Amino acid sequence: MRKYRNAEIQEVTVQDKFLSPRMAANRQVTVPYSYKRCQETGRIDAFKLDWKEGMPNRPHMYWDSDVAKVLEGMAYVAAGKSDPELEKTADALIDLIVSAQQPDGYLNCYFTVVQPEQRWKNLTTNHELYCAGHLIEAAVAYFQSTGKRKLLDAMCRYADYIDSIFGPEENKLKGYCGHEEIELALVRLYRVTGNQRYLNLAKNFVDQRGQEPNYFLEDQADSREWLINLQAHKPVREQDKAEGHAVRAVYLYSAMADIAAETGDGSLLDACNKIWNNLTSKRMYVTGGIGSTKSGESFTVDYDLPNDSAYAETCADIGLVMFASRMFNLTGDGKFMDVLERALYNGLLAGISLEGDKFFYANPLEVTGHFIEAGHVKAVRQPWFGCSCCPTNLCRFLPVMGSYLYSVGADELMINIYAAGKAEFNLVTGRVKMRVESNYPWDGDISIRFQEAASGKFTMGLRVPVWSPEITVKVNGQGLNNAIENGYVKINREWRKGDEIEVKLAMPVTALHCHPEVSCNSGRIALQRGPLVYCLESIDNKAPLGSIIIPEQQDFKLKAIDSLTPGTIAITGRAFTENPEASADLYFSGVPAKAETTFTAIPYCLWQNRGPSEMAVWIRTV
Amino acid sequence: MRKYRNAEIQEVTVQDKFLSPRMAANRQVTVPYSYKRCQETGRIDAFKLDWKEGMPNRPHMYWDSDVAKVLEGMAYVAAGKSDPELEKTADALIDLIVSAQQPDGYLNCYFTVVQPEQRWKNLTTNHELYCAGHLIEAAVAYFQSTGKRKLLDAMCRYADYIDSIFGPEENKLKGYCGHEEIELALVRLYRVTGNQRYLNLAKNFVDQRGQEPNYFLEDQADSREWLINLQAHKPVREQDKAEGHAVRAVYLYSAMADIAAETGDGSLLDACNKIWNNLTSKRMYVTGGIGSTKSGESFTVDYDLPNDSAYAETCADIGLVMFASRMFNLTGDGKFMDVLERALYNGLLAGISLEGDKFFYANPLEVTGHFIEAGHVKAVRQPWFGCSCCPTNLCRFLPVMGSYLYSVGADELMINIYAAGKAEFNLVTGRVKMRVESNYPWDGDISIRFQEAASGKFTMGLRVPVWSPEITVKVNGQGLNNAIENGYVKINREWRKGDEIEVKLAMPVTALHCHPEVSCNSGRIALQRGPLVYCLESIDNKAPLGSIIIPEQQDFKLKAIDSLTPGTIAITGRAFTENPEASADLYFSGVPAKAETTFTAIPYCLWQNRGPSEMAVWIRTV
Repeated sequence: MRKYRNAEIQEVTVQDKFLSPRMAANRQVTVPYSYKRCQETGRIDAFKLDWKEGMPNRPHMYWDSDVAKVLEGMAYVAAGKSDPELEKTADALIDLIVSAQQPDGYLNCYFTVVQPEQRWKNLTTNHELYCAGHLIEAAVAYFQSTGKRKLLDAMCRYADYIDSIFGPEENKLKGYCGHEEIELALVRLYRVTGNQRYLNLAKNFVDQRGQEPNYFLEDQADSREWLINLQAHKPVREQDKAEGHAVRAVYLYSAMADIAAETGDGSLLDACNKIWNNLTSKRMYVTGGIGSTKSGESFTVDYDLPNDSAYAETCADIGLVMFASRMFNLTGDGKFMDVLERALYNGLLAGISLEGDKFFYANPLEVTGHFIEAGHVKAVRQPWFGCSCCPTNLCRFLPVMGSYLYSVGADELMINIYAAGKAEFNLVTGRVKMRVESNYPWDGDISIRFQEAASGKFTMGLRVPVWSPEITVKVNGQGLNNAIENGYVKINREWRKGDEIEVKLAMPVTALHCHPEVSCNSGRIALQRGPLVYCLESIDNKAPLGSIIIPEQQDFKLKAIDSLTPGTIAITGRAFTENPEASADLYFSGVPAKAETTFTAIPYCLWQNRGPSEMAVWIRTV
Repeated sequence: MRKYRNAEIQEVTVQDKFLSPRMAANRQVTVPYSYKRCQETGRIDAFKLDWKEGMPNRPHMYWDSDVAKVLEGMAYVAAGKSDPELEKTADALIDLIVSAQQPDGYLNCYFTVVQPEQRWKNLTTNHELYCAGHLIEAAVAYFQSTGKRKLLDAMCRYADYIDSIFGPEENKLKGYCGHEEIELALVRLYRVTGNQRYLNLAKNFVDQRGQEPNYFLEDQADSREWLINLQAHKPVREQDKAEGHAVRAVYLYSAMADIAAETGDGSLLDACNKIWNNLTSKRMYVTGGIGSTKSGESFTVDYDLPNDSAYAETCADIGLVMFASRMFNLTGDGKFMDVLERALYNGLLAGISLEGDKFFYANPLEVTGHFIEAGHVKAVRQPWFGCSCCPTNLCRFLPVMGSYLYSVGADELMINIYAAGKAEFNLVTGRVKMRVESNYPWDGDISIRFQEAASGKFTMGLRVPVWSPEITVKVNGQGLNNAIENGYVKINREWRKGDEIEVKLAMPVTALHCHPEVSCNSGRIALQRGPLVYCLESIDNKAPLGSIIIPEQQDFKLKAIDSLTPGTIAITGRAFTENPEASADLYFSGVPAKAETTFTAIPYCLWQNRGPSEMAVWIRTV
């Protein structure tokens, strides 16, 4: 049913100034660092299955997933660059993991050594199938990168065992995991093995979810209110709002889209579309962040998007990219890519320091002085977490960013994001090889040159991002007036070696307003240029940032800023600061004095890379 | 150590248009209604001690306190007006309560019939001493109102028993209650009985709190983080910020002030002053609400005062009035009375409907459309709660509002709040009887006429509220220029029958700004007139209220509004509404159109008395 697939990571070489350094930091720092933290904390040794009560490093029920995600990251890094040392480490880790597999195929450290009597007893909270899903994804990734089957074969045995336990049949458990992930993983396993049982099992988990009698209520959930946090309050096809724990939610929706793609199930796609509309039109931060509250790390209600207490978990941004990508590949509608780009270039990359060794779990859109002092949202990135899902998710996400730049159809090639680099694909019409030159996202001038193009017509799709008010396209110097369809300019022709497409995207500074129901943002603007949402940091501006007023009607200026990643462009302009000698009174009367000043805004995804700072995305305007 | 005492309720007859109707509704509706709810829910029958597993209405560990607070309310109502029927009901209830007392003096339904083995085993969460405290307060109140000693005597036996269990001695428990209340109650019991042991026991509970080794950590608290919520993170004399569960906090601080008053302990008063300064200059809503978050119903960090997710529990407002009153009586500083009045006339009275039968537990300063639909803060008052502390606290608070209007010293009489009515006191110089005529808080013109004044000089103190920029005082038509000391004009003379004091308080509409660290309020104003903070409801204004802009520099108009309590004055004026045809997009560019309009603001304490409505206190300004 799907129109496109993502590019494979081997097909794309990212060579820009924006994503490439993040990928390099991931390869050089985040992956080895995370592997080391997994070692130090006992997460890897746990697979030796020799832990006993009283020993340090008691395994935790999430731990297998952390190791699996780091391994998945290693697999992608290995795919991109030959690295025998890394592969040796990965092979040894795989040997250890596989050694922990039980004769029946089961593989879970915690439920083998700590609570063996709890196997499959508490799907509501125990993350057992979630861990299995991440191990399966790592196995698929490692097989695809290296051709080595050891972990893949072990995971097929595990999946076969899971399939013997769960299903709609009389003698099987009707359960499904409190934290969705196994569904996605099984679709990947199906795609790589061609074994239909894995797709059926994924579909079963999706189909069972929220059915009555509710499995979780007979398991560990003590109230119906709990169910919504696990997207199990009603059958998935009846769901029409983004609800509950945000990461779980977008993993489920991604799996629903996957199963729709594989089975042609229109009812699942309908539900995905309804949920998408609710999510993006009422429950998503301008940074692409989702999940408004720490309580349950979850969605709340429409238009509830507080800035300072935002949860907007980094993992949820990753999940939103996954969901958006699947929806685009199913429908070809550029609106999905607009959200994908928003989440990727803003909320997601804000989750990790430029050096690659510090992380935000939650991504607030405002940090004020009192939050630097103390508070439930961290004002500086942390080196690791007890539940370290975000760092390990970044390990496996950052190396595959190139796969989202292109979507590939039978005789169509869509360029979604114009990051500089090289790409090559085998379309039905033959091999295509191209080079993209750009300074994206800092500049909208793009050149795409074909270095190889086998004969035969095919369609090039060129995305027209929602943020660009104007696009011009030339092919070999000749202007085109092709209509924009679903957010893409499509050019169908016989492409030849040496052909050049020039794309010019207007990239003005835009002052975004927010729907007036989001009361905290009314009277405020967020600056955006290209895909990047900007913020103010007190490092560049006078605190408190709530005193700064940026007139929206002005000629904003661009300024290179060297203290961040090379090439960074800041936005500057006129501003007022109110009440510069702030009264110490909590409440006071009298019109506050205003003083003229200037402001400097930096991309949100780069904030807190120069020490602690107050920060705000939504700034008062006049 | 204290300079003043509150008026006794028998000394004051409130006859204004503002407080009196609330007191009448409490007498006619809230108290009988709450008594009935206590009957229906099994709270009263629980004292029969015949509940057994499997029966309905399983007693809850808070229940005794709800019944005690309703009984305390009945006691005050009985004091104000002869009501034999009410007294009969109260006497029967007291008989039942006393019948539940155990031979050793212990009296707690839950820990007698449901979990007898848990007696004194979990002070952290079990509210056992808290329930005892409320029973003691009810006993003191009923004795003071009726002279009947039955419950008082029973409570002395209970307090004696508690004193045999708790204390610094080797063989006693060093514990104290997770929810403060017993401390206050024991001081009251000491004052009415003169038995020093009760004061010592109260002081012991205060002194032990937060000492190391920490009692709660050896009891049920599983982390140090928990301790702060119970104000047990350090000894009370080392505390300098308002921390933790807001209701517990102000009950503790009130007890600290009481003990300082009785013992002259300056170190307790110092701590109270430090905490007070933090609370009122950094952690208090403009309505007097305290407790910024639902999580732990607690204080958070400085300047964290979100409007829509405010907790600002009604009970915490009551507790803040208690704390402020004690601090005023200790120091004579009018700043305490300014906060008392703010909390009483705004946040506290917002907690109950005009009819007296619906309640807010949390008191947000903003309710938007999405919160009407669903959410953690209720947008309409509720008839009762599983934990019904707020309705029952109102039962006992509303009848004693008159006692806060005056503070009485040996030869000083302070008028704190100029509500119309009558008062009579026996000062050392003799009997004083006076009538206050005013339309307070709607108007600042006040006349105080002595109907009786025995010979001898004494000082009349006339409060100059912080909100009034100008006060004129005349005695028998003669203007006075007395200096304002600590927020009061003081007149020392020989007062005679027929003397008249005229006070004119300027009562302009004031646009309050908030400290710029409170980012959500920057660029916004709150309107206040006299003691009343105003809000906009969508019933009177175009929603969403975030689109409304009120220019702060204008001549605000006053308008009688008949749909609320008689005499209500609304504020109206010019405004703009932005983007009247709101875009459906969550984020959009382009300067929103502005249209001229008018606005109508009503007192915050009267909101949601005309059906569900969006509401906002802090409004955008230019």
